[in-house]
Amino acid sequence: MTLETLNAGLDTIWVVLTAAMILLMEGGFALLEAGFVRTKNNVNIIMKVFADITIGTLCYFVVGFGLMYGMDVFGIIGASGFLLKGDLSHIDLTISMDAYWLFQGAFVIAVISIVSGAVAERINFRAYLIFVVMMTAFIYPIAGHWVWGGGWLSRLGMQDFAGSAVIHALGGFSALAAAIVIGPRAGKFTSRGTSSISLPSNLPLASVGAFLLWFGWFGFNAGSTLQATDVRIGHIAIVTMLSAASGGAVTLLYTLFRYGRSDAPSVINGSLAGLVGITAGCAFVSDLAALLIGAVSGMLMLAATNWLEARKIDDPVGAFPVHAASGMWGTIAVGLFSTENGLLAGGGWHLLGVQILGLVVLCIWGFSVTWLVFKVINVWLPIRSTEEEEELGLDISYHGIMATHTSPEFIKVEDYYKQDEELTR
Amino acid sequence: MTLETLNAGLDTIWVVLTAAMILLMEGGFALLEAGFVRTKNNVNIIMKVFADITIGTLCYFVVGFGLMYGMDVFGIIGASGFLLKGDLSHIDLTISMDAYWLFQGAFVIAVISIVSGAVAERINFRAYLIFVVMMTAFIYPIAGHWVWGGGWLSRLGMQDFAGSAVIHALGGFSALAAAIVIGPRAGKFTSRGTSSISLPSNLPLASVGAFLLWFGWFGFNAGSTLQATDVRIGHIAIVTMLSAASGGAVTLLYTLFRYGRSDAPSVINGSLAGLVGITAGCAFVSDLAALLIGAVSGMLMLAATNWLEARKIDDPVGAFPVHAASGMWGTIAVGLFSTENGLLAGGGWHLLGVQILGLVVLCIWGFSVTWLVFKVINVWLPIRSTEEEEELGLDISYHGIMATHTSPEFIKVEDYYKQDEELTR
Amino acid sequence: MTLETLNAGLDTIWVVLTAAMILLMEGGFALLEAGFVRTKNNVNIIMKVFADITIGTLCYFVVGFGLMYGMDVFGIIGASGFLLKGDLSHIDLTISMDAYWLFQGAFVIAVISIVSGAVAERINFRAYLIFVVMMTAFIYPIAGHWVWGGGWLSRLGMQDFAGSAVIHALGGFSALAAAIVIGPRAGKFTSRGTSSISLPSNLPLASVGAFLLWFGWFGFNAGSTLQATDVRIGHIAIVTMLSAASGGAVTLLYTLFRYGRSDAPSVINGSLAGLVGITAGCAFVSDLAALLIGAVSGMLMLAATNWLEARKIDDPVGAFPVHAASGMWGTIAVGLFSTENGLLAGGGWHLLGVQILGLVVLCIWGFSVTWLVFKVINVWLPIRSTEEEEELGLDISYHGIMATHTSPEFIKVEDYYKQDEELTR
Repeated sequence: MTLETLNAGLDTIWVVLTAAMILLMEGGFALLEAGFVRTKNNVNIIMKVFADITIGTLCYFVVGFGLMYGMDVFGIIGASGFLLKGDLSHIDLTISMDAYWLFQGAFVIAVISIVSGAVAERINFRAYLIFVVMMTAFIYPIAGHWVWGGGWLSRLGMQDFAGSAVIHALGGFSALAAAIVIGPRAGKFTSRGTSSISLPSNLPLASVGAFLLWFGWFGFNAGSTLQATDVRIGHIAIVTMLSAASGGAVTLLYTLFRYGRSDAPSVINGSLAGLVGITAGCAFVSDLAALLIGAVSGMLMLAATNWLEARKIDDPVGAFPVHAASGMWGTIAVGLFSTENGLLAGGGWHLLGVQILGLVVLCIWGFSVTWLVFKVINVWLPIRSTEEEEELGLDISYHGIMATHTSPEFIKVEDYYKQDEELTR
Repeated sequence: MTLETLNAGLDTIWVVLTAAMILLMEGGFALLEAGFVRTKNNVNIIMKVFADITIGTLCYFVVGFGLMYGMDVFGIIGASGFLLKGDLSHIDLTISMDAYWLFQGAFVIAVISIVSGAVAERINFRAYLIFVVMMTAFIYPIAGHWVWGGGWLSRLGMQDFAGSAVIHALGGFSALAAAIVIGPRAGKFTSRGTSSISLPSNLPLASVGAFLLWFGWFGFNAGSTLQATDVRIGHIAIVTMLSAASGGAVTLLYTLFRYGRSDAPSVINGSLAGLVGITAGCAFVSDLAALLIGAVSGMLMLAATNWLEARKIDDPVGAFPVHAASGMWGTIAVGLFSTENGLLAGGGWHLLGVQILGLVVLCIWGFSVTWLVFKVINVWLPIRSTEEEEELGLDISYHGIMATHTSPEFIKVEDYYKQDEELTR
Repeated sequence: MTLETLNAGLDTIWVVLTAAMILLMEGGFALLEAGFVRTKNNVNIIMKVFADITIGTLCYFVVGFGLMYGMDVFGIIGASGFLLKGDLSHIDLTISMDAYWLFQGAFVIAVISIVSGAVAERINFRAYLIFVVMMTAFIYPIAGHWVWGGGWLSRLGMQDFAGSAVIHALGGFSALAAAIVIGPRAGKFTSRGTSSISLPSNLPLASVGAFLLWFGWFGFNAGSTLQATDVRIGHIAIVTMLSAASGGAVTLLYTLFRYGRSDAPSVINGSLAGLVGITAGCAFVSDLAALLIGAVSGMLMLAATNWLEARKIDDPVGAFPVHAASGMWGTIAVGLFSTENGLLAGGGWHLLGVQILGLVVLCIWGFSVTWLVFKVINVWLPIRSTEEEEELGLDISYHGIMATHTSPEFIKVEDYYKQDEELTR
């Protein structure tokens, strides 16, 4: 037993355990989204998350990881490591490449799961599957290469510790494009321009999701050190907690005093916004900055929700407000508050400028490529559910089953499958 | 890389991971309590837990931690470390102060969440928020200083490894005072003095909560070593498991033979009682003692439940039976069974005496200060929901929303907010 | 602080944390099964899992562990370590025996929980409790000794890293015997031989369960190294993920193209089948083999489900298809794909032969002893619920309570207990 062996073992279990925590966040996404949408679409949204995990993992394994972390080509793209084969010697690790891959694989699934919420309740399931492939094999990995894979943004000095920009802003803008191109749910906006609300089908279920996400976020942020001896781990963990608490507290108190009640969906999303906001800067900012980042994240989430309503964009679970709005703010906040070279620490305008540049690039990339991909898919496969499918609910339409069945009766197998034949006709 | 660096890294990830597990217990509290209370109060109880996490974390950061672990003043109170600033050099750690804070912050949230259950279904939400501040900034931190912060009880030699007394007995007696001062739910006790029961709204949901709590408890107890090289970790983990199993088994079998059925809420609470009971002694007692501690905890929980009914005290989720009764027993059990200096190990009466003294002090402190605080709050803000609010359900009354909405229809935004205006009038 | 101390600490927290993750899988089993069965049996199935954890833990502590890991007697049985006492010096560990026990204790509970699903909705609760004792004290420990405790199969060279055979195939065949001997649920198969389906009561709940199981599986497989410095940990984790993703993806796509919809229960069980399949070989096979193992596991699960239907065997949650079918395949796959001495790696037929021999022995053992035990129990206690109990639902029949109660009313305590008296008459 040597020090090096021990160190490698320590780093490995740290990365594997935190990767498992991030993967549990998928349960969080599934339940949060299921709880927020209408009952008739509960199964569908959970199945979309299963598609994210299963198909997304495979695509990232075969293609995405290579594009993101393979040997750099002109700062634009990676070009080795497909199927985890080929030369990956440029990646300097104390852990095995396998453990590293698992951690990165957990990240890509989070990105696609952000989009799944924004297109809830009206996307064609087959079209969604194709988008999962595009996102996990190409869209995210290429942008990820620029910041984390040794590409041009990383060379400019962009800092995004655990992904406020790469994961959340990109995912959030992709979600925005998807929500726009697919259009609002039937009944969401009336012809006279007024907006309406569909109440959450199951808030306790959504809360389970939020708690799993919160738990997993410690893995997300602190695990991104990739080394258990990184002295920043304790600090990363505490600012993650403080920002989340701040985001949740500010939405709890704001809705209490503004509307006379603490609005539960706002508090849940406010806490998550606080988590998103601190994700870029968790290794770089102070405790007090974290409190501010969280509070602003919570308020921005509320503002962005109103902005979407005013623009008649339908984002059923708040993917854009939570991930894009707070993600943008969190990325910029690094430029302001980084204790090393942020503007307020006397580090000048350089970092802030790079952060904004990178952010704009990632948001445009996420938005425009997603838009394009959906438009192309739509040429040969309608991306939007039919009116009948949407009315009936995507659970029955695409999965032939409902979220809950209280009848204690058995039904004939023939009837169960006959249902399918009707659906596929 | 040196041995010291490795050791610090090892201890840090141990504390951060276990702290995250403890924070996941908040999901456990929320769901357990939501599953036990009536549907119309599900959202409210989850929002109370969100208040615990968000506002509680901030208060402990600003004030509580300093009072608990700051520089000792006369053995009574700490006086540095507010906002994690000032002299904290008296705390001897291998990990960073940040990681230490996170772990302690996870503890304080657990304490306040114990109380949230006892006041379920009839407390004024705003009054509860004020109590959260008082508990997390003052009540728990001051008492915690006495035992864990270098205060007078620790100097006497009181042993409470992970908090049967400081967390559970104190929290449970605070819950008792709150339940008494706020009075029983309308309809719980009839004028003729007979008691009645509200059946749990959702037992599977409560079970999710119980499993999350059980999982987190390994972090709670074993993580309290704060050092991954502490040779007691394996032992702590196994006695935690044995005591929980024993508490659950005894309630399962007792209710089966006594009432002809295994009563699900009793089994859930019996397992949790076993976990509470072993919390003080997990580092000090043998496997067989753990089995006994768990079994007695389960039976005490049942007895305390009956005692509350007989005294016409309404504790909807069993906060007092689970936390106070088992917590008291667990604290005393250290004095009996500690393999080092317990009475039965020939260590004499000293430890047992100190344990009982400390326990009595903590219970009186938790009960009386809580009582006082609620009485003071009540002077300018009614701590009790109005009859209408309680009848309507706290979800609609305080949060304008219900736990589940099965209607697939949209409602107008104006109507959603109009609802608020009516409520705040 | 020495290297050895650090190493022991590192290994200990690794084993304790992964053991806790495995124990959380019990929550996964409970919710998965509850979500799949009919509402009227939700509480009962959760209570069976509580029985697994509480009573199973105690039995394994008192008897089972000694039979499994005690001093070997003729390669057949262990004979020390009951109550963790006696000579266990033959077990070579870097961690404490306590931590080792906890990890093994988490395994035994998983085995019995597999069976609980197959007998859902119609087993007499008291009879089930007796079976829990038999399984956790004798059936699993004895077979476990053969493979993992130094018994005859391990001497032959059988390789089952984390238990595709010992846990899943044995548990699955035990489940099959139990399902057969207890008979199908009333109404499942009509007199004319056609089969019918009871739709899942709550798919979101089942999904929570699946996500918890998936998370815990990383502990299950990677934790089985028992040493954090084991260089295979990263690889184990990634193949676990790949196989699960593959199993889920193949069922998602197959049901989509075959039936025109992605069948949610199939996708959930397909992912779990992928996890089961890789459990034996996670330390021995390549990434690409893992993808194949997962895909075949998913398809085998579907085939086995149809086989059960055709044979008129009623397994309400798919315990046999998920655990036995995939577990058998996973065990054989080691003989094929092991990179060290598998058939396809040029290692010849020896390993494959041993794997098949061991597998057959374990399946026969699991099936026949379970059959026998239930037959013996049935002599003095009916193992099958009465028609009335089954019709009424096991929740009311055995626990006097339902899973959900939406009525906001209180009921009299007398009425609550009167109910019991009626039931026990």
